[in-house]
Amino acid sequence: MTLNHQIRLAARPVGMPTRSDWQFTTEPIPTPGPAEVLVRTLYISLDPAMRGWMNAGKSYIPPVGLGEVMRAGTAGKVIASNHPDFAVGDYVTGGSGVQEYALSDGKGLTKVDVATAPLPAYLGTLGMPGMTAYFGLLDTGQPKEGETLVVSGAAGAVGSVVGQIAKLKGCRVVGIAGGNRKCRYAVEELGFDACVDYKTGDLRQELKTACPGGVDVYFDNVGGDVLDTVLTLINRKARIVICGAISQYNATAPVKGPSNYLSLLVNRARMEGIVVFDNAPRYGEAARQMMQWMREGKLHHREDIVDGLDTFPETLLKLFKGENFGKLLLRVAAE
Amino acid sequence: MTLNHQIRLAARPVGMPTRSDWQFTTEPIPTPGPAEVLVRTLYISLDPAMRGWMNAGKSYIPPVGLGEVMRAGTAGKVIASNHPDFAVGDYVTGGSGVQEYALSDGKGLTKVDVATAPLPAYLGTLGMPGMTAYFGLLDTGQPKEGETLVVSGAAGAVGSVVGQIAKLKGCRVVGIAGGNRKCRYAVEELGFDACVDYKTGDLRQELKTACPGGVDVYFDNVGGDVLDTVLTLINRKARIVICGAISQYNATAPVKGPSNYLSLLVNRARMEGIVVFDNAPRYGEAARQMMQWMREGKLHHREDIVDGLDTFPETLLKLFKGENFGKLLLRVAAE
Repeated sequence: MTLNHQIRLAARPVGMPTRSDWQFTTEPIPTPGPAEVLVRTLYISLDPAMRGWMNAGKSYIPPVGLGEVMRAGTAGKVIASNHPDFAVGDYVTGGSGVQEYALSDGKGLTKVDVATAPLPAYLGTLGMPGMTAYFGLLDTGQPKEGETLVVSGAAGAVGSVVGQIAKLKGCRVVGIAGGNRKCRYAVEELGFDACVDYKTGDLRQELKTACPGGVDVYFDNVGGDVLDTVLTLINRKARIVICGAISQYNATAPVKGPSNYLSLLVNRARMEGIVVFDNAPRYGEAARQMMQWMREGKLHHREDIVDGLDTFPETLLKLFKGENFGKLLLRVAAE
Repeated sequence: MTLNHQIRLAARPVGMPTRSDWQFTTEPIPTPGPAEVLVRTLYISLDPAMRGWMNAGKSYIPPVGLGEVMRAGTAGKVIASNHPDFAVGDYVTGGSGVQEYALSDGKGLTKVDVATAPLPAYLGTLGMPGMTAYFGLLDTGQPKEGETLVVSGAAGAVGSVVGQIAKLKGCRVVGIAGGNRKCRYAVEELGFDACVDYKTGDLRQELKTACPGGVDVYFDNVGGDVLDTVLTLINRKARIVICGAISQYNATAPVKGPSNYLSLLVNRARMEGIVVFDNAPRYGEAARQMMQWMREGKLHHREDIVDGLDTFPETLLKLFKGENFGKLLLRVAAE
């Protein structure tokens, strides 16, 4: 008998999560009841936000409870269905969590067309990261033609989409990424105008050189010193989109606030936080637009796929060590 | 022969300015040339922003040069005029700096009517602090009826106006001020719903009690720990107006950034800086509205007037020690 392997949150981590913060469980594969569908998970999305979901306390979404299957976005295949809208063989995305099989009443499941885009892309550019980039950039960043946009995590799932859309909107686009390989990818494959490696050299000086007209929009995925540095280079009426702060998620000391926040005053600038879920009613609009850009060859995507559900604890950490290159996914079964 | 006593910036202060950062000079009182006017300064406005103007480096306005008469807003009386728009005896406001007499070509001078409001009010509620409050609150804070507004420096020149206008717009208004006397003034004379003394007790707990529905708009004049505390209490889509950071202006260590800035993300909230000068074309509109509120008894003002140009170095420091109570002015001659 095949079992459903699951990974549950066993403890609230202090700092970087370790293997002992997880519990590995098995259960019989459930059988769908009336109007239910059984999905075989193929890919599990690993996202920086997951670290926040592991903490107790109020946030934009309730924390994952201790003993619960870890929350995660997933892409999979329907293998049994009593639901009129889903047939065996359908590819779907949803939030099945870190496990191999999941029942659903259909709510939160979305059928996707793997002829239009490969299944992993539905967890990246056409999934939450892409939606985050699209709405965060266009609605909150409000880039205008000729402006300069800087984005951190430039080679990552969100940052790569932010930069490419900003290019499509006529901006000068400067990325910040860790390592020469990611920077070259941003410039050579994604079409950024420049990309600065934050791990080497003088970040401020290099950004200044790359942004001779200053920074009009900064899309921040990392927080910490990088945010503080960009704050010294912003223009009047600049918009800073606070999407995340991956440098701070595992901090055991208090979060480093941006010392240079008074640059907001001097420059009459704005710093604004975003949460992708607020745009749910408009996901379809964004997905259609981004699929069109993909078809036209204007929007590239890249996934970093690691095999094996059991590697989850270590694979997740790649995000916080800057070791992933593209949208990080766990493949738990072959398509 | 009467001389023009002046105070010039002698050195860029480190931390709190001291008497040795100033140079006391005297010059002959100048004689107006064609189309010029000579103004006798009566009141000099002392503002927290002056501390920033003493620092080198790029800001929203160039720094005061070493050896220059210190920049300051002033109210005075025309004592000689070759300018068609100004007659001897006219009361005017302008930016004559920290000195007793100044020539002007009329640019930047505004005639004011001391029958409508007392002259000191034209440097407070009807001057820069009032304009800062009016535009910062209404345009950037965007308070809506029924929302909760918190303002720090609640008994000060800006904060007192912010809170009173927010009351007029139907908000619950909670002040933060130093000392029981200022808090009582905010509640009993200005009509705030509550005021929390940041110097005693548990600021977060007291604010939480005073804001049972959370904080929708925070107008920040102080920065530091107070800003960080309010960030933990903001509601979704909250607006934080960064008007100043008086707690940080004399810091010799790096400015304390807001550790809790990720509350902006969780709450999809915004932090935005303002500079009053951007609203210059609309000062008249604001002044007319505020004069009307004053006539109707809906907008109270209070000045803290200290006599003597020579007391300037010490009087200025009252701002940074929280010792002033109302708009701080130096009276350099009797009306």
